Amino acid sequence: MSKRKHMPKRNKILERKAGTKPGTLAIPAEAFAPRFFLMSFNEHMFEEVETHTYQELLHKVRSVPDARHWIDIRGYADQAVLEQVMQDFGIHALQMEDVINDYQRPKVEDFDQNRLFIITRMLRWSPEFKTLDDVQLSLFTGPNYVLSLQSDYGDCLDPLRERIRVGKGVIRQRPTMYMAYAMLDVVLDYYFPVMADIGIHIEDLETQVLREPSKATLSQILDLKSELVKLRRITWPERDLMNELLRMDDETIPDSLKVYFRDAYDHAVQLIDLVDNHKEMTSSLVELYMSTVSNRMNEIMKVLTIISSIFIPLSFIVGLYGMNFSHQDPDTGHTLRYNMPELYQPFAYPILLGFMAILILLQLYFFYKKGWFRSF
Amino acid sequence: MSKRKHMPKRNKILERKAGTKPGTLAIPAEAFAPRFFLMSFNEHMFEEVETHTYQELLHKVRSVPDARHWIDIRGYADQAVLEQVMQDFGIHALQMEDVINDYQRPKVEDFDQNRLFIITRMLRWSPEFKTLDDVQLSLFTGPNYVLSLQSDYGDCLDPLRERIRVGKGVIRQRPTMYMAYAMLDVVLDYYFPVMADIGIHIEDLETQVLREPSKATLSQILDLKSELVKLRRITWPERDLMNELLRMDDETIPDSLKVYFRDAYDHAVQLIDLVDNHKEMTSSLVELYMSTVSNRMNEIMKVLTIISSIFIPLSFIVGLYGMNFSHQDPDTGHTLRYNMPELYQPFAYPILLGFMAILILLQLYFFYKKGWFRSF
Amino acid sequence: MSKRKHMPKRNKILERKAGTKPGTLAIPAEAFAPRFFLMSFNEHMFEEVETHTYQELLHKVRSVPDARHWIDIRGYADQAVLEQVMQDFGIHALQMEDVINDYQRPKVEDFDQNRLFIITRMLRWSPEFKTLDDVQLSLFTGPNYVLSLQSDYGDCLDPLRERIRVGKGVIRQRPTMYMAYAMLDVVLDYYFPVMADIGIHIEDLETQVLREPSKATLSQILDLKSELVKLRRITWPERDLMNELLRMDDETIPDSLKVYFRDAYDHAVQLIDLVDNHKEMTSSLVELYMSTVSNRMNEIMKVLTIISSIFIPLSFIVGLYGMNFSHQDPDTGHTLRYNMPELYQPFAYPILLGFMAILILLQLYFFYKKGWFRSF
Amino acid sequence: MSKRKHMPKRNKILERKAGTKPGTLAIPAEAFAPRFFLMSFNEHMFEEVETHTYQELLHKVRSVPDARHWIDIRGYADQAVLEQVMQDFGIHALQMEDVINDYQRPKVEDFDQNRLFIITRMLRWSPEFKTLDDVQLSLFTGPNYVLSLQSDYGDCLDPLRERIRVGKGVIRQRPTMYMAYAMLDVVLDYYFPVMADIGIHIEDLETQVLREPSKATLSQILDLKSELVKLRRITWPERDLMNELLRMDDETIPDSLKVYFRDAYDHAVQLIDLVDNHKEMTSSLVELYMSTVSNRMNEIMKVLTIISSIFIPLSFIVGLYGMNFSHQDPDTGHTLRYNMPELYQPFAYPILLGFMAILILLQLYFFYKKGWFRSF
Amino acid sequence: MSKRKHMPKRNKILERKAGTKPGTLAIPAEAFAPRFFLMSFNEHMFEEVETHTYQELLHKVRSVPDARHWIDIRGYADQAVLEQVMQDFGIHALQMEDVINDYQRPKVEDFDQNRLFIITRMLRWSPEFKTLDDVQLSLFTGPNYVLSLQSDYGDCLDPLRERIRVGKGVIRQRPTMYMAYAMLDVVLDYYFPVMADIGIHIEDLETQVLREPSKATLSQILDLKSELVKLRRITWPERDLMNELLRMDDETIPDSLKVYFRDAYDHAVQLIDLVDNHKEMTSSLVELYMSTVSNRMNEIMKVLTIISSIFIPLSFIVGLYGMNFSHQDPDTGHTLRYNMPELYQPFAYPILLGFMAILILLQLYFFYKKGWFRSF
Repeated sequence: MSKRKHMPKRNKILERKAGTKPGTLAIPAEAFAPRFFLMSFNEHMFEEVETHTYQELLHKVRSVPDARHWIDIRGYADQAVLEQVMQDFGIHALQMEDVINDYQRPKVEDFDQNRLFIITRMLRWSPEFKTLDDVQLSLFTGPNYVLSLQSDYGDCLDPLRERIRVGKGVIRQRPTMYMAYAMLDVVLDYYFPVMADIGIHIEDLETQVLREPSKATLSQILDLKSELVKLRRITWPERDLMNELLRMDDETIPDSLKVYFRDAYDHAVQLIDLVDNHKEMTSSLVELYMSTVSNRMNEIMKVLTIISSIFIPLSFIVGLYGMNFSHQDPDTGHTLRYNMPELYQPFAYPILLGFMAILILLQLYFFYKKGWFRSF
Repeated sequence: MSKRKHMPKRNKILERKAGTKPGTLAIPAEAFAPRFFLMSFNEHMFEEVETHTYQELLHKVRSVPDARHWIDIRGYADQAVLEQVMQDFGIHALQMEDVINDYQRPKVEDFDQNRLFIITRMLRWSPEFKTLDDVQLSLFTGPNYVLSLQSDYGDCLDPLRERIRVGKGVIRQRPTMYMAYAMLDVVLDYYFPVMADIGIHIEDLETQVLREPSKATLSQILDLKSELVKLRRITWPERDLMNELLRMDDETIPDSLKVYFRDAYDHAVQLIDLVDNHKEMTSSLVELYMSTVSNRMNEIMKVLTIISSIFIPLSFIVGLYGMNFSHQDPDTGHTLRYNMPELYQPFAYPILLGFMAILILLQLYFFYKKGWFRSF
Repeated sequence: MSKRKHMPKRNKILERKAGTKPGTLAIPAEAFAPRFFLMSFNEHMFEEVETHTYQELLHKVRSVPDARHWIDIRGYADQAVLEQVMQDFGIHALQMEDVINDYQRPKVEDFDQNRLFIITRMLRWSPEFKTLDDVQLSLFTGPNYVLSLQSDYGDCLDPLRERIRVGKGVIRQRPTMYMAYAMLDVVLDYYFPVMADIGIHIEDLETQVLREPSKATLSQILDLKSELVKLRRITWPERDLMNELLRMDDETIPDSLKVYFRDAYDHAVQLIDLVDNHKEMTSSLVELYMSTVSNRMNEIMKVLTIISSIFIPLSFIVGLYGMNFSHQDPDTGHTLRYNMPELYQPFAYPILLGFMAILILLQLYFFYKKGWFRSF
Repeated sequence: MSKRKHMPKRNKILERKAGTKPGTLAIPAEAFAPRFFLMSFNEHMFEEVETHTYQELLHKVRSVPDARHWIDIRGYADQAVLEQVMQDFGIHALQMEDVINDYQRPKVEDFDQNRLFIITRMLRWSPEFKTLDDVQLSLFTGPNYVLSLQSDYGDCLDPLRERIRVGKGVIRQRPTMYMAYAMLDVVLDYYFPVMADIGIHIEDLETQVLREPSKATLSQILDLKSELVKLRRITWPERDLMNELLRMDDETIPDSLKVYFRDAYDHAVQLIDLVDNHKEMTSSLVELYMSTVSNRMNEIMKVLTIISSIFIPLSFIVGLYGMNFSHQDPDTGHTLRYNMPELYQPFAYPILLGFMAILILLQLYFFYKKGWFRSF
Repeated sequence: MSKRKHMPKRNKILERKAGTKPGTLAIPAEAFAPRFFLMSFNEHMFEEVETHTYQELLHKVRSVPDARHWIDIRGYADQAVLEQVMQDFGIHALQMEDVINDYQRPKVEDFDQNRLFIITRMLRWSPEFKTLDDVQLSLFTGPNYVLSLQSDYGDCLDPLRERIRVGKGVIRQRPTMYMAYAMLDVVLDYYFPVMADIGIHIEDLETQVLREPSKATLSQILDLKSELVKLRRITWPERDLMNELLRMDDETIPDSLKVYFRDAYDHAVQLIDLVDNHKEMTSSLVELYMSTVSNRMNEIMKVLTIISSIFIPLSFIVGLYGMNFSHQDPDTGHTLRYNMPELYQPFAYPILLGFMAILILLQLYFFYKKGWFRSF
């Protein structure tokens, strides 16, 4: 549970000021300066550019009217730009608030005329610290563009960009909504290798628990469990989002695309299955840990008990013959013949040693019979 | 679980007298004397006043017919006033009973003609004692007013009041229902910093569990868990309330406002997510605590076992050579040569010391091999 | 779990004979002789009487045709009476069977023409033994009467009777269905002080667990938990019952009464909340108990370990110097100078004492450092 | 969990051969030879007979055309008979497969014209071994008969048979569907005394846990829990079955009978309540057992700690004065006055005894103060 | 949890590359070379053949136009073949992707005109390692064929093949959809013997836990639990699949076949019951294990405590009389008569031995009374 140090963004959701006017663009202090990317393409052409200003971007878009555009704005630090975007793309103030406040659940909103406002969450997995982070990706679809907004410069959409650049085929010919689907699909696909990594992490933890469980191990297990709880909270609404897209009317999402969204829906369901599976296995790890601790306690106790049970009676015996009962009355000089006559027998000592050896063997046999020498 | 001392209001719900006539105004003994606040405003004007009597308030309201009013009554001690309010605002006896009995779940009732009766719960968080309290806020909407009733003088609505005072804009122009929404939103927004505080409290508890867990720590964890259970009981109906408002017909809540209620609904859902998250983390803390206690037991046992295992056999050995088997028969004077001849060897003592040192080293090696010196 | 001794009625449900003809009036052996109570009233008059026989009761009812009646029969020992009641009030044999067999879940049945057959359960709480009991109250509504049947003479409806006696107002003017509602409301209201008592009981148990947990405490906690499980089984169908009444058509329950049933429904929901809350707190108590037992074990172990770790090594040392290695060869008289020369040093004893004192201090410091003296 | 020895039939469901043609009559090897029973009756007559062959049975049925028949076939060993039955009564191969394979969940199928195929499960409770078994009863209703099939000769329907024999009344006059209901009701009724027995068994186990918990006790508790899990799996579909019957159209089950099926439905719901209740109590027993084991461990540890804490320091002291530091230098004869001068004080021994007695008393007081003498 | 070594295919789902174009045929590296099997039959003829190439297969199919065909392709290594299949059978690229990626949940898709695309999962159980594996079987139905695709050469459909070969009857006469059903039924049937094996495995584990629980036992139990969790994830969608097939319209699945699908649905439900049952029993095993470990600890502690409690006090006593308090002042020669006069009593030693024997007996009696000699 100590991972939170590496996750400064964790509690952002909680810093929301109570009582701010709904729909205010409360741009976070740490927001990045906006960068503007554009991909314009159709069956015949493809153009990719990063512009310096929003105006330049807009100009570019307008200069190629017969293409489809992926307008890609990263960083929210410039309020003027955001307000301009709202105006140019017909975005409601509350929607833009949702875009900026990076803690929305995945959702889809149908607005205007068959336009969609989609929020999905991109995963980030830090393999060293085994911590999960997730960043919001907001999409607005329009007749011939998809507008994507995100707070960070980096994302997991590069494979898609590459496909647009390289492949002349499918993606450049399909309607804009297909591009929106492709983005969602890429985002979702990125979850799978993360789950694979977590799976390996679980097996590592299992080995650790079985070999040498420490408090740190348990802490890691509980951390992982809490990450999986978080993941579960993200994946369920992703599924709902896909489901809602599936159930949209024909005009918003043409029937020919439904088969793709159905595929994405199936992936989301598999993802939930995986998360649940990992969560159950993590819970089993806690049980295994607890029982390992108990077993270890048992082993410790067995060592103590075996040693004590063997030597405490022996110590009594040798203590017995260390007593100073006098063979002679010091005052009268009479022999006290009943006081420890054993001490004066010629073979007393070897006999006693033998007796004690037999005792030890008997006890060892008893413990062996009880199965205490088998590793418990 | 000792926090209840700081929460005298906790069991109020339970003091309900069995068999009182339904709809009776059973004003609690500790009710405050009513205070009357009024905010009247439209695009052009704004007036704020606290009046001494209800009649004065009513007079004020009637004197500005073309404004919207926030009539704000705090304290229920005066039955006559409450009955007058019921009559003037067309409130049913059972509704007023719900207002006074401060233990209602959040809910909305549609009555008369598109008027709403809304109950929501304002949170109060005591950061020192880490205790939650919640007070009821009751709203009645009318064509040009919102009537709010609450039992206490203080509340969490000040940010909204400030916005009405300062901002000439949106809130003064919108229909009354927008003001109702704004109140609900402010109430809900106040939950978020409380959740942030609880989040920090959880991390503190975690540190405590890992460093030096005590019975007090567990007690605090279980307290927190019970607060979160309570919070869960409040937030779910808040979500239902928002959902019901969302599904109201156009006349009650115009479509142009729905987008705001949808936003509030999203907030409520996020809140539930947060509460669930905190609850799961608290449960993990209990597991961590339990395992820490077990680990501690193991460490204690290891100390005991190491010390005992080393010294008990040694004690036996030294006891052995403390035995008094006689070298000489006291009666005959014969030498008993088999009785502890070791005692009379010239280097017996140093050899024994060396033997015991080796024994100690062997045992230490054994325990080291077993990993008992690693902090478990 | 030992409370069952005080609850001889507990298993009554289980004594049902397999294979009895459905609809048979299997009057239980311990049934009370029936007593007959009648309240007749309208806006203008009020009459209350206990009659000796059922015939007398019926005669009374018929003699005041323009009043509403609460016919109140307690005790089922007389089969003839019950059969007469079935005939006079048009009650089906299976319904009467349900009335007599005191283990029905709360339910409502709509039969004949807008007549209702309602079963609800009155709570009984024994504050000394902290045990819950619940008795069935069966209601049949008719155009101008409510017929109530119960197995015991005592019940929790007295506050309602008092209200009918005293208040000339509401209840005497409203339709019969309002009286049915009033009964259900009184029954439900009685749950709240019981819950308050249980709340106090939980706090007592908590104090007990924290101060001096004993096996008896745990037994009490588990008893309470099982009572709350039972209570949950009763309150859920009570809510369903209210819900079903709410959804009845206008003719059965006029719209003007719906607001009252909605209020009762809200109460039932609050009740479920309370029961759930108490149940979760009880579960927390079990966790607290378990951890207290573990802590106690830790404390015991610490005492043992501290004492043993300090004195076992010391015992070894003193044992060491209790050995009898001889300073002189008994046969030759040669001095064996390497055999325990320490014994013959002038300051050996005080030096050893000092050494042992330092050892003790070192160990105490070690345990102090480990935090073992802090109460765990 | 060792009860399975007494339940050879448990895994029958698992012996189903993969890949057998669906609808094949795979008669189990241990099937009994069929026996044929017939009850024919109407208001005026009653006849009961066991026939030797199926043909004889059929002949009997046909000879009394104006009666209702309960055709009761027990044992499935004769495939020819079963196939004849399928043909004569219009039973589908898959239905007959369901009849023979004794592991179907309770269900109802509506086929042909208003005919029903009902599967229910009869309980068998072995009071000595506290084990549950359940056998399948299959019913086919027809216009004037009910055909019941079961694999065993014995069942729990005897009370119903007795009622038909004795009572001239209701059951002989009602339509066939009433007889089907009566069978289901008798089957269901038999669950209640079993539940009563289980309740008593739970109380016994509780006493055992509190008095002298052993591994056998826990094993019994877990056995019972697993039986209750199984029972839950049976009772839920029984309720669904009743519910489906309740929702059947008028022609299949006339309205006048619905009230009976509603009653049976209520019984099924109560049964589920009882099973759930027993299950929760059993879970509480496990908790109680676990805590009793912990308590016992605590008590053992207390005994050990008290004894050790008292005697280990005392042993050190007596060991101290058993040391052999010499009062005299053996070589020079000088007195070594600092070596254990206590040994030569006149009252040293009695003083030491007194000191040790005080030490014991102090320790006892310390443990008393800690509450260790109270039974934990 | 160590079984994963035997299951190299486990994480295949996780190896999906993020960002691959949806619908790409990403053939796994370890795919087998395709083999082509064909069964053609109708009431009059039957032909079975394995062809070398896909073209040959297709030619075979076309040469018998009036038969029904089971086209059975195993192994996905040849992309060209797969693409040809897609074209010839009108299969969508996403469907073929689902076929190849062997980690789909069971599902059914209705496409084209009443054609079905069904994915089900065939179980594989390794009885030695007690591990489950599951392989995907994909079916496409057409007017007169069923096309089945699977990644491995072996499967569990041989019993069905045998039935087609041998039985002239039912399966050769029925519509193609019946063959699809038969396949699903065979797949499902194979689950039952696996469940039987698991049931036996559970009983073995139980015996192991009761006799000699080891860490390996727990590990096996948790492994099994995790297999059952996986099984649960497969069986639920199998049931949904059957349910969806049941609810298909008449043209896709004729009514006359519905009865078979209903039967398969029942089997799926029973399967879920079995899995749940096994899962609950496995959980009980964990509880049993935990408590066995606790019991064992108790037994160890009892041995330690009995031995220590008996001998530690005795050791004190003998130590007492090993003290060297002098009977004589070495300087003055005066007799110190209060220093251990017991040592000089004539019967001191036998008396002490007797006293110690009595002490031992008393302690043994005390422990006997406490029930410590009963095996706990």
